[in-house]
Amino acid sequence: VPTAAVLVVGDEILSGKFTDENGPYLIRRLRELGCDLRRLVVVPDTLDAIAEEVARAAGFDHVVTTGGVGPTHDDLTFEGVARGLGRPLVLADELVALLARSGLPPTEANLRMCRVPEGYRLEFGRSSFPVVRAGNTWIFPGVPSLFRKKFEDVANAFRGAPILTARRATSRRETDLAEALAQVAARFPAVAIGSYPRWGDGERMREEELVLTLESRDADALDQAAEALDRLL
Amino acid sequence: VPTAAVLVVGDEILSGKFTDENGPYLIRRLRELGCDLRRLVVVPDTLDAIAEEVARAAGFDHVVTTGGVGPTHDDLTFEGVARGLGRPLVLADELVALLARSGLPPTEANLRMCRVPEGYRLEFGRSSFPVVRAGNTWIFPGVPSLFRKKFEDVANAFRGAPILTARRATSRRETDLAEALAQVAARFPAVAIGSYPRWGDGERMREEELVLTLESRDADALDQAAEALDRLL
Repeated sequence: VPTAAVLVVGDEILSGKFTDENGPYLIRRLRELGCDLRRLVVVPDTLDAIAEEVARAAGFDHVVTTGGVGPTHDDLTFEGVARGLGRPLVLADELVALLARSGLPPTEANLRMCRVPEGYRLEFGRSSFPVVRAGNTWIFPGVPSLFRKKFEDVANAFRGAPILTARRATSRRETDLAEALAQVAARFPAVAIGSYPRWGDGERMREEELVLTLESRDADALDQAAEALDRLL
Repeated sequence: VPTAAVLVVGDEILSGKFTDENGPYLIRRLRELGCDLRRLVVVPDTLDAIAEEVARAAGFDHVVTTGGVGPTHDDLTFEGVARGLGRPLVLADELVALLARSGLPPTEANLRMCRVPEGYRLEFGRSSFPVVRAGNTWIFPGVPSLFRKKFEDVANAFRGAPILTARRATSRRETDLAEALAQVAARFPAVAIGSYPRWGDGERMREEELVLTLESRDADALDQAAEALDRLL
């Protein structure tokens, strides 16, 4: 089963200037693709923060970064990823050629977009600029429309076995069911059982409904756990 | 200036079963309160993930956790925070008394909600149950309506000097402005300058507008940087 971490790079998200659209998009798409998202982090535009997260995520199959790949002083993702992977930055000749073809002058600022971690790979899709990969890390732009287009260019690389789900709702209280739920969870280790009370928003707040979710890549285990849950409810 | 990290605990967010509402709420409120949010992480319901994030966040003034504080087998936040802070769990007598008063039997499941990190503090607001603090960590429920009510009970503790902002928009391209922007940024280190191109969503995507933002707690520095930017544009 492929695993992934998402690293959203951007002061503008943490400060609330812009709402993160890429994290929610990736949550939905990685799920649909059957890739297990294990961590999502939003960090500021600093080398240390980016490098630290990339280094910590060495154990995941994929790390998806968004943001921080433009020409300005606060675009530090390539350099941060390189440091996190323990690799130097190198000038990618193919990217320099693409820069020239798109009519941008080879200024120091523009060349920032062509300095990528050593051992990089370029994934060409339908976009004019490729996606840059290095190690387990896929480096995407932060602008949502660009991000989505480029992610879909390479989405197949994230595909895993599909995740099967079931869901139950009950008016019984979570506190009354907790111990029985723990027993069902222990009996079916291949099934992830979640328990989510919904609360009303009124003056005197109280639990109004309990949503129970079951998830597994094993269809038989899922059915058996769902049956056990139905007997319980 | 107070600093903060947010730790959202929940398989249900990473798997897309529920959309995170608490992270965006905290981004907005911490900003309004003048508290610098430095990291936002979403982790699964596992002890290791929670403990690791709490330990990493030792240098922040505040860590706000949401989720994982109910009675079920996957509610591990109190235990994870305790481990992250290097403290044992202890049974909080005041919480056991509140449990009894709300008519919940003292089952093992319900007592999970009363076992909190040693050295805890209880912050009573308008809610019937208090917010639990330990070290720099504030532990909140994940249910959004409950979370918001409890956060507002203690929001004043997060207050810092207000952040002043200015914003400019231009039709000039980011690549043409990058070097001049870097010079302005270097001249005004007390001002954070952000550069955010907006792209159209059409067939042939291109940069349509560039939004420049300035932020500082120093009003004079902000004005001077804004003037320098205006001369540039």
